[in-house]
Amino acid sequence: MSSANPRAEVRDVASKARLRLWLKLLKTSGSIEAELRRRLRDRHNTTLPRFDVMSALSRNPEGLKMSQLSQFLRVSNGNVTGIVDRLTDDGLALRVAVPGDRRAQVARLTPAGEAEFARLAAEHEAWIDEMMAGLGADDITEMSALLDQIQPIGANQTSKDDLT
Amino acid sequence: MSSANPRAEVRDVASKARLRLWLKLLKTSGSIEAELRRRLRDRHNTTLPRFDVMSALSRNPEGLKMSQLSQFLRVSNGNVTGIVDRLTDDGLALRVAVPGDRRAQVARLTPAGEAEFARLAAEHEAWIDEMMAGLGADDITEMSALLDQIQPIGANQTSKDDLT
Repeated sequence: MSSANPRAEVRDVASKARLRLWLKLLKTSGSIEAELRRRLRDRHNTTLPRFDVMSALSRNPEGLKMSQLSQFLRVSNGNVTGIVDRLTDDGLALRVAVPGDRRAQVARLTPAGEAEFARLAAEHEAWIDEMMAGLGADDITEMSALLDQIQPIGANQTSKDDLT
Repeated sequence: MSSANPRAEVRDVASKARLRLWLKLLKTSGSIEAELRRRLRDRHNTTLPRFDVMSALSRNPEGLKMSQLSQFLRVSNGNVTGIVDRLTDDGLALRVAVPGDRRAQVARLTPAGEAEFARLAAEHEAWIDEMMAGLGADDITEMSALLDQIQPIGANQTSKDDLT
């Protein structure tokens, strides 16, 4: 059918190429993430969600509420609470009251938690460096610019969706 | 410390750049996936795992065992079984016995399931096309080649790990 309309055919080819690229992007990020999970488990007896919670707390030394942590990590409040509970049991995090709000608490890393995260983060960075060793400085700049051209939610699309 | 060793410093800069690229890659694929989930839910009252199960069944018209489906999708057997149960209830899939093995069953799409998946897959492709509209044919070729240079599990690394 599309051969009757050369422009529709060109559009179709581009659409298939974008779909293949998306599947490759998904496969690559999934493979890297799976390998990170494996190494955190096998070499450090820890998990990616726990690493991500420690990373968020490390970037926010003033502390984070459970709801803020959930938003950062896109996981449920319940899971985040369980992870912070275990970090607290291990002496790596603590809960402190928010001044002026008796019912509100934030979680923070302890100095031991900061030290543990620094150790894990250095390993994590080295693993990524190894997995992406095939990309030189120019490749990195190029791929970063290409990723910036992908817009999961275009401004037009969002407003159109809001109206319908 | 690293300023005492220029080569170590260069290595450190490259490592940080690769880490930033990984975080951007993860953010991009996560945003696309979140938007796909949202549209499947809001516009088609369905889920990404259900779409993925239908996609795997569509690519394997001879049928797939639950264990094969789980491997394809990296989700638990239990979840896959639940999804196939619901597809069967909806008349979109059916379970058939494997000739020569009375206890083994494979799931297949029904003609109605094939039609439904074709409709969803066309939508899905159009969404990806829209989200990646910023990438032209050369960009797609370029990014695909760059993704091929990422090796989550290098051959050397794997064999080294096996020995330690």
